[in-house]
Amino acid sequence: MSEKAFQDYYPDDTSHCYGCGRMNPHGYQIKSYWDGEESVAHFTPQPYHTAIPGFVYGGLIASLMDCHGTGTASAAAYRARDRAMGTDPPLRFVTGSLKVEFLRPTPLGPELELRGKVLEVKERKVVVEETLSVDGTICARGNVVAVLMPEQFMLK
Amino acid sequence: MSEKAFQDYYPDDTSHCYGCGRMNPHGYQIKSYWDGEESVAHFTPQPYHTAIPGFVYGGLIASLMDCHGTGTASAAAYRARDRAMGTDPPLRFVTGSLKVEFLRPTPLGPELELRGKVLEVKERKVVVEETLSVDGTICARGNVVAVLMPEQFMLK
Repeated sequence: MSEKAFQDYYPDDTSHCYGCGRMNPHGYQIKSYWDGEESVAHFTPQPYHTAIPGFVYGGLIASLMDCHGTGTASAAAYRARDRAMGTDPPLRFVTGSLKVEFLRPTPLGPELELRGKVLEVKERKVVVEETLSVDGTICARGNVVAVLMPEQFMLK
Repeated sequence: MSEKAFQDYYPDDTSHCYGCGRMNPHGYQIKSYWDGEESVAHFTPQPYHTAIPGFVYGGLIASLMDCHGTGTASAAAYRARDRAMGTDPPLRFVTGSLKVEFLRPTPLGPELELRGKVLEVKERKVVVEETLSVDGTICARGNVVAVLMPEQFMLK
């Protein structure tokens, strides 16, 4: 794993996301890294992130997949262009679509592990397939179609 | 609209959901109602529920669609059985899968309107199609496959 997370390379003006913005003190601030060909992120939910008692809220799982997906998309786009992360112009992605399949209830308490696999990298679109596991058991699968953020949203 | 929301009929032991549980003081506590053949819910995000500045976080949109979908599924299942909501045995649904398409950035500030349309009601499965709008403009579309909660999760 690299020391600096994908999200740490985002320009300041796009670092307020509730899921992954390092400048959003209310948010989840998830951090994604390469682990070989896959991307990985870990997150420990709060006790109130519950669906039914004892299990993780599905909306949180969707949120984590969303931000881990766009983070992975950014890293994959830099890699495909053979560019170092954080170099200009920034390659920051937003979510075009998100699909989550909840395979089994996700136990609330232990750390969650998200893994991403890049399925497709195009000029302005990256598709990432994800799993969410607890203690090695896959509890949910996701698919994120990430789209390169239009420049007008990056306001300096 | 009826006075009592779908979620207000959930049994206490399944009312701690971060998205819609009336007994979760940290959560969104969304409330869904019938409006003719459609279901409707309104939610005003907090200023920190941001994606990029000025726009609503996609994970929040996914969360709202998730809970509005399972709420609509419960109401539709009672209606299909010609039973009053809240009568036993409870018909409480969990999410099997969730898909969200983000059509355009959702402005952060105004109230969001969620609308649900029931596509299919089976014995243990309900499919709900949703839109999320701001001031009459649809910003996202969703699809929730909701599954009747297995009895072992309803612990009294």
